[in-house]
Amino acid sequence: MLNVPFERFTKDTIQAMEKRFRAAFINSLSGCKSANLVGSRSAAGVDNLALISSVFHLGTDPALQGMIIRPHRVRRDTLENIQQTGYFTVNHVNREIVRQAHQTSARYEADVSEFEVTGLSPYFDEQFQAPYVAEAKIKFGLKLEQIQPLAINETVMVIGSIQQVLVANRRWLGEDGYLDIEAADSLAVSSLDGYHTTTSLGRFEYAKSKGQSR
Amino acid sequence: MLNVPFERFTKDTIQAMEKRFRAAFINSLSGCKSANLVGSRSAAGVDNLALISSVFHLGTDPALQGMIIRPHRVRRDTLENIQQTGYFTVNHVNREIVRQAHQTSARYEADVSEFEVTGLSPYFDEQFQAPYVAEAKIKFGLKLEQIQPLAINETVMVIGSIQQVLVANRRWLGEDGYLDIEAADSLAVSSLDGYHTTTSLGRFEYAKSKGQSR
Repeated sequence: MLNVPFERFTKDTIQAMEKRFRAAFINSLSGCKSANLVGSRSAAGVDNLALISSVFHLGTDPALQGMIIRPHRVRRDTLENIQQTGYFTVNHVNREIVRQAHQTSARYEADVSEFEVTGLSPYFDEQFQAPYVAEAKIKFGLKLEQIQPLAINETVMVIGSIQQVLVANRRWLGEDGYLDIEAADSLAVSSLDGYHTTTSLGRFEYAKSKGQSR
Repeated sequence: MLNVPFERFTKDTIQAMEKRFRAAFINSLSGCKSANLVGSRSAAGVDNLALISSVFHLGTDPALQGMIIRPHRVRRDTLENIQQTGYFTVNHVNREIVRQAHQTSARYEADVSEFEVTGLSPYFDEQFQAPYVAEAKIKFGLKLEQIQPLAINETVMVIGSIQQVLVANRRWLGEDGYLDIEAADSLAVSSLDGYHTTTSLGRFEYAKSKGQSR
């Protein structure tokens, strides 16, 4: 393996790349990302959907998720809605809705609902304040806990606490708490515009060092 | 779709879940995650590898990546090494090395190198200060830019700037900058211990609203 001739891209090479080329390249590097639609509602009552591939796990007790938003790029509405109302939803994208989900990344005016232009169906749970995507098979509602601007660039980290989880099929939840996102057809994203289904290699046992008890 | 009877898990239901069950459940919710090995070296010269599924894209100019580390859980070594030396690597996990990669999540003492116990091969690029995984087909080296403790829980966000990228096959890089991580066999992770290959559904065109020019 050590003799494989790797292609090396230096910091200078990367900096010199054409802007869109570099965006596609750098966005590829973190690997498989989650394909999620984030649902929110403005104070004026306009529902919004945005495709966001940066939702990440932040903790289990309390149950927290984070996501990165670039406020100076396309989806400023999402951030403003969350600031205004304090609630948002995360909806897993599946094959049935992937084209519509991708279409939400177009620039629409603030008074346009991405539900209406894409044909995705809003779903309002009686116990929650933000719109879900009816067609998403796994989705959850969050309460805003913190908006943290990152000084290093113009991105913003949004942290929410999970208030409820909706799952279309109870059998996807295993006896040990593992939720089978593949059975729910939850997709992966690569770079800016690549979508992927997944095929399980199985689950691996809890790793132990020699002599370690769990 | 609106009539699908969703299984609803409330905040109270989630809070009442057994600890490990809840961890598996909540870790499932963000969806597909990237499977990466983070390489670092201690000031004393011990190399370390940790499986981290929270690496995320943070920006392209400068090229930045972030990751979340829970310092009070297993992989404190990684955080300490990065604090000590200021450099680390991110290495995509592929099928050939997935079992070894998962094994790095076991608890080893600080003076033990996960390279040695798992048999993964360290690779040192002459232009970089932290160990790579030779067997990884896409990997990149980062310089520490910021360590930001998140007040909301005991996690820490580590932000690094990309110094170099190593790719095993130049043909995986498209003319528009898209790097074919699927051709490199980069895997996805679900929950805490599920691994997945991916199958491309293709790339989608840049989404536009009516009348919008790019």
